[in-house]
Amino acid sequence: MTDRTPFVEDASVAQLIADEQNAYRAQVTQGLDLFLKRQQAILGDIADDALELTAAIGRLTSGGKRLRASLCYWGFRGAGGSSDARDPVLAGVALELFQAAALIHDDVIDRSDTRRGSPSVHRQFGTLHERNRWHLSSDRFGVSAAVLTGDMCLSFSEEQFSDIGPSAASGTAARSIFNRMRTEVMAGQYLDLLEEAVGPDRTPDDAAARALRIVRYKSAKYSIEHPLGLGGALGGADAAQLAGYSAFSLPLGEAFQLRDDVLGVFGDPAVTGKPAGDDLREGKRTLLIAKALQNGSTRDQELINSTLGQADLDDEGVSRLRDAIASSGALNAVESLIAEHSEAAALALGRLELDEVCRSALSGLATAAVSRSA
Amino acid sequence: MTDRTPFVEDASVAQLIADEQNAYRAQVTQGLDLFLKRQQAILGDIADDALELTAAIGRLTSGGKRLRASLCYWGFRGAGGSSDARDPVLAGVALELFQAAALIHDDVIDRSDTRRGSPSVHRQFGTLHERNRWHLSSDRFGVSAAVLTGDMCLSFSEEQFSDIGPSAASGTAARSIFNRMRTEVMAGQYLDLLEEAVGPDRTPDDAAARALRIVRYKSAKYSIEHPLGLGGALGGADAAQLAGYSAFSLPLGEAFQLRDDVLGVFGDPAVTGKPAGDDLREGKRTLLIAKALQNGSTRDQELINSTLGQADLDDEGVSRLRDAIASSGALNAVESLIAEHSEAAALALGRLELDEVCRSALSGLATAAVSRSA
Repeated sequence: MTDRTPFVEDASVAQLIADEQNAYRAQVTQGLDLFLKRQQAILGDIADDALELTAAIGRLTSGGKRLRASLCYWGFRGAGGSSDARDPVLAGVALELFQAAALIHDDVIDRSDTRRGSPSVHRQFGTLHERNRWHLSSDRFGVSAAVLTGDMCLSFSEEQFSDIGPSAASGTAARSIFNRMRTEVMAGQYLDLLEEAVGPDRTPDDAAARALRIVRYKSAKYSIEHPLGLGGALGGADAAQLAGYSAFSLPLGEAFQLRDDVLGVFGDPAVTGKPAGDDLREGKRTLLIAKALQNGSTRDQELINSTLGQADLDDEGVSRLRDAIASSGALNAVESLIAEHSEAAALALGRLELDEVCRSALSGLATAAVSRSA
Repeated sequence: MTDRTPFVEDASVAQLIADEQNAYRAQVTQGLDLFLKRQQAILGDIADDALELTAAIGRLTSGGKRLRASLCYWGFRGAGGSSDARDPVLAGVALELFQAAALIHDDVIDRSDTRRGSPSVHRQFGTLHERNRWHLSSDRFGVSAAVLTGDMCLSFSEEQFSDIGPSAASGTAARSIFNRMRTEVMAGQYLDLLEEAVGPDRTPDDAAARALRIVRYKSAKYSIEHPLGLGGALGGADAAQLAGYSAFSLPLGEAFQLRDDVLGVFGDPAVTGKPAGDDLREGKRTLLIAKALQNGSTRDQELINSTLGQADLDDEGVSRLRDAIASSGALNAVESLIAEHSEAAALALGRLELDEVCRSALSGLATAAVSRSA
């Protein structure tokens, strides 16, 4: 235990952090531009038409909160790394490219038409096809082109990661974390998909445990724990420090994804940039749904079982499902869990040996990850 | 010019090559098993359900001709590498995993139900869904799971490649070739897709040049030139030797893909393991089509323009399209080009400074790549 209050910071420290973080983010953005320019030169030599691929990746990576890159940076700094080092910039670019690849394929899988308030990549290619009145199906063209764009983006991520050099070479802690991150997130996404398909037939008593496992692998480890650990490993953190990082970042990551689940059902489309109710139409079996089916009235349960996953569910239907989830107590239960995990994270952060700037920076990222509305 | 006849080899050399190549292929198969076992352990710790992903990758990588790995091996040996070295085994495993990833996503894009005579990965997952009478769409489940499996396989490829260590680290010729190979094949696949969609509206006079560019980037460089060059680079080949390799492998690769195009239209399904006419139903605008539209009768041209790309084209329709392509002279023209490219490759092979075993081995792979019926 500690008497530190890590979620509060004074104004001058806050300014230092903001400056440092902005400088780093600018370097990541510059690194992305530089990397994509090199790739554009390669694609341009093949055919101008192929530049659509890097253009789509460029549009997607120009947005986003750079959460994973920032975690990597502060993990690096917290392990004693210098603020002007090259490694965390390259790792940050690699993480942002990996995230972009995951989003492109995720939107294909979920058939999501929007991402970050703009058309998703498969919709961009579909629109290109429609606008030009090309032949065959514009939907299939869009999806196929997005599969290829995601593959290219995934390869780019790896290419940039390998550019880090010896400190991320085979056998290093950094490379192990990066490898495991990829395997785990893909496994987690598969479990998510499987739960939509088979969840209704499995023991409802285990549904919450299964939902939490998906939260952990699909998101918590990938979005929060591994980026922080990767930065730590690059900065030379030992096993004990990395374990301390995980004690903070894994509960934080779970809170982060549970917030995402809540926003996916109750979020404001104008803020999230995603249509309301998409998670419900998609049939996502989140902890919210598991809890609602466990504790809701028979009427709530029946409503959920009969309408969850209906692709053509109208706003009225979305609204009824939301009410059922809220009235079952599931929303409160998940909010409580978010609060618990956030508190566990804050305690673990307090226990880490960090200077005040790093601690406050991580505290700020933690608050943003959990309290966000988008 | 040379008086060597590289496509003929004597019996004792042939036996030496077969023994050496079989020993290498066995090591690649063992390497794949070992790698996938390590990944299974990671996935098993997450959830037994997730083991379906590595199982699908294992089934796919257990088949195949190991063409790319073998080219890498002989490229390595030709550059002076030893037959018991570890690098070409790891590179071979990485190439086979990359090829598997490309096939999984390719089958998603083409909606191909079979691969190597077995159900494609998205069909395997679709069938798993159907057999268990799971919820929501089995088609969407299959495609989504295959997108994720391909992503995982792509990441595995990279993970194994990075295990090579310093000789494939950032800045080395080997890493550059591997990076470029990935970017180029994805760009080539996109151009292939684009040609299906927009080809009919573009200048027919350029159609052959566009088809040849697709051949080059989608396949020739990726399947033949880069695997050989990668092996050479790992074996310490200098720029001149790599250029000599390319003079052999690029025309060979083009002949290889043109053979593939011919088999895609005229191949025997019992031998190719793919349904007859799939390339025609898919609307692939190969050099065969470009030539047929350029030189065929008006009647042939009209038939091609009106039926190419019809997903529901029946066997009768496939047969009529085939006849039109053959009678236009396109089949003969492409066969001549295959012969020309093969000859250019043979001449370039003769010019390479190689011992008789390496030369004969490459000559044997060249013959197999171009004369194959599957």
